[in-house]
Amino acid sequence: MSFHRIAIIGLGLLGGSIGLAVKSHLPGVQTTGYDADPAVRLRASERGLADVICSTAAKAVKDADLVILCVPVGAMGAAAQEFADALKPGVLVSDVGSSKATITQALQDALPGVAVIPAHPVAGTENSGPDAGFASLFQQRWCIITPPERADSKLVDRLVDFWEALGAMVEVMDAAHHDRVLAVTSHIPHLIAYTIVGTASDLEEVTRSEVIKYSAGGFRDFTRIAASDPTMWRDVFLNNREAVLEMLDTFLTDLAHMRESIIASDGEAMFDLFTKTRAIRRSIVALGQDDARPDFGRSDHKG
Amino acid sequence: MSFHRIAIIGLGLLGGSIGLAVKSHLPGVQTTGYDADPAVRLRASERGLADVICSTAAKAVKDADLVILCVPVGAMGAAAQEFADALKPGVLVSDVGSSKATITQALQDALPGVAVIPAHPVAGTENSGPDAGFASLFQQRWCIITPPERADSKLVDRLVDFWEALGAMVEVMDAAHHDRVLAVTSHIPHLIAYTIVGTASDLEEVTRSEVIKYSAGGFRDFTRIAASDPTMWRDVFLNNREAVLEMLDTFLTDLAHMRESIIASDGEAMFDLFTKTRAIRRSIVALGQDDARPDFGRSDHKG
Ligand SMILES: NC(=O)c1ccc[n+]([C@@H]2O[C@H](COP(=O)([O-])OP(=O)(O)OC[C@H]3O[C@@H](n4cnc5c(N)ncnc54)[C@H](OP(=O)(O)O)[C@@H]3O)[C@@H](O)[C@H]2O)c1
Ligand SMILES: NC(=O)c1ccc[n+]([C@@H]2O[C@H](COP(=O)([O-])OP(=O)(O)OC[C@H]3O[C@@H](n4cnc5c(N)ncnc54)[C@H](OP(=O)(O)O)[C@@H]3O)[C@@H](O)[C@H]2O)c1
Repeated sequence: MSFHRIAIIGLGLLGGSIGLAVKSHLPGVQTTGYDADPAVRLRASERGLADVICSTAAKAVKDADLVILCVPVGAMGAAAQEFADALKPGVLVSDVGSSKATITQALQDALPGVAVIPAHPVAGTENSGPDAGFASLFQQRWCIITPPERADSKLVDRLVDFWEALGAMVEVMDAAHHDRVLAVTSHIPHLIAYTIVGTASDLEEVTRSEVIKYSAGGFRDFTRIAASDPTMWRDVFLNNREAVLEMLDTFLTDLAHMRESIIASDGEAMFDLFTKTRAIRRSIVALGQDDARPDFGRSDHKG
Repeated sequence: MSFHRIAIIGLGLLGGSIGLAVKSHLPGVQTTGYDADPAVRLRASERGLADVICSTAAKAVKDADLVILCVPVGAMGAAAQEFADALKPGVLVSDVGSSKATITQALQDALPGVAVIPAHPVAGTENSGPDAGFASLFQQRWCIITPPERADSKLVDRLVDFWEALGAMVEVMDAAHHDRVLAVTSHIPHLIAYTIVGTASDLEEVTRSEVIKYSAGGFRDFTRIAASDPTMWRDVFLNNREAVLEMLDTFLTDLAHMRESIIASDGEAMFDLFTKTRAIRRSIVALGQDDARPDFGRSDHKG
């Protein structure tokens, strides 16, 4: 791994986890960190999320050979502009944002002449902020790297090595395909979860207290995702609009079919779908992408 | 707790868990068990899911003062008919089915003159069968009892005591209201999860292997629910048709609004919804209805 000084911009869940993971997996590498929020910087110092916490983005990046932006998708361009003039020649700028096409454009616009190779580690929890990060977040998780056309393949290789050093498995694809894949595996699930939790909060015939009490029937699973950071997710939907709408319409068509099956009491159609969907779960568990224990290994009712 | 002999009909997740919970919480009480599937009966004997495993339903119920039906919703009526003639006078027949109005009717039709008080413990996992049950399934979970009009209140009290003895908290309501509440907190979440997992399996532009690899972005949460038993869930949708369709239409209206917000790039509307939904998660965790740890306490990426 050939980066020696890494600057982390944004010290929440992702930035903090990268700092802690570098400390534990790449002990020779120096990290600097910056966050726009002074309270976050203070907490980041206390937790040691980076070796040095800086008071400006420019100070954080000035000696770095890798800069990783870990701010909300909509803040990427502005955050990059803040340090554009302070970068060292030869630096690589990357990020961890959840959508890739618009971020690539925003970073290239903010950093003309600078090497930019965006990335997205598909790893997270519903928590955010400087207390949420942990060193093992990327273990056994995939990180998708989306090199723009004409990206330097040696730099791509170094970025791959970096993520593998933190425990991740890496895949390279273009930004547009990334945005379609994540629309299905992440953005639509969040949109649906936020919506159904909103629906359940506002019903006339079922009280909110009933929804909470009887949530163990399945609903509570959706509330975890729907507790994710509002700024992050607003930015994702604003930035991955087209792919999200395309997948949403496919889902709505399928849901309309299920609605028809229920109206028609078509048990066979239901049974067929419910049987088919079990296979995917098995593969996810077999490939180490979920906890194999029933109920995700929750222990709240084992009391 | 004034039941002395309890017959459990159907020895899968729910029946097995009741048997094991009775053994651990009510050691003086005798249990008998029956399942239509000889292989399940064999496995139930090996695991000791009931004190005595019987080869017919009639044998299982003949000395029981409480019979609990733990078969799929659509099998309740036929299962009750099988033992109708073998019941002892004064027996109470109950069940654990996930919908209540149609089951109440089916049991009353199959068992004229017999005391029937349906119930539904809101507790489960995605697993089913005789290996899935465990004694603590009902700990800290709610059990809803839905006494028909003119039910004997002393029998209701005894059934409340029984479920409380197994670690559950009990609420009494009518079957129609139960079916509405569970449509929101359980049936619609399952319908949505099954549908989106189906959608994701059949896309042209994103392969199934990509969906599996990048499922940690949120999708994997839905696959757990969508791995639940197909027979059970087909029966739920066939039996709670009206309430499910009513809630589905409310959800579809809300989802159409979110779709419009995305089309219009209305970040404020998104931010408002995403902020509101966090509150419900907090209450669910505060009331002990979910694991408080991030990511449900999954440990698959902590490696
Ligand atoms: N959470 C996940 O599960 C997950 C997974 C994969 C990728 N991602 C991506 O990772 C990125 C960060 O997400 P996160 O979950 O780590 O969010 P987070 O915990 O909220 O951290 C983001 C931090 O960036 C700060 N910030 C905002 N604008 C800034 C700027 N211009 N300069 C410096 N700092 C700034 C924020 O401060 P303020 O709070 O004061 O704005 C906040 O402390 C997002 O792009 C997200 O899409 C998230
Ligand atoms: N799973 C949950 O999370 C959950 C939660 C709360 C309530 N419930 C309700 O609990 C009930 C049982 O669900 P479960 O998850 O325990 O299902 P399960 O694990 O599949 O067990 C049901 C058992 O009943 C047997 N059976 C079917 N028809 C029968 C009959 N006529 N007589 C005797 N045995 C029969 C089945 O055998 P075959 O497999 O051979 O048919 C199976 O072994 C359902 O009504 C469900 O709605 C489930």
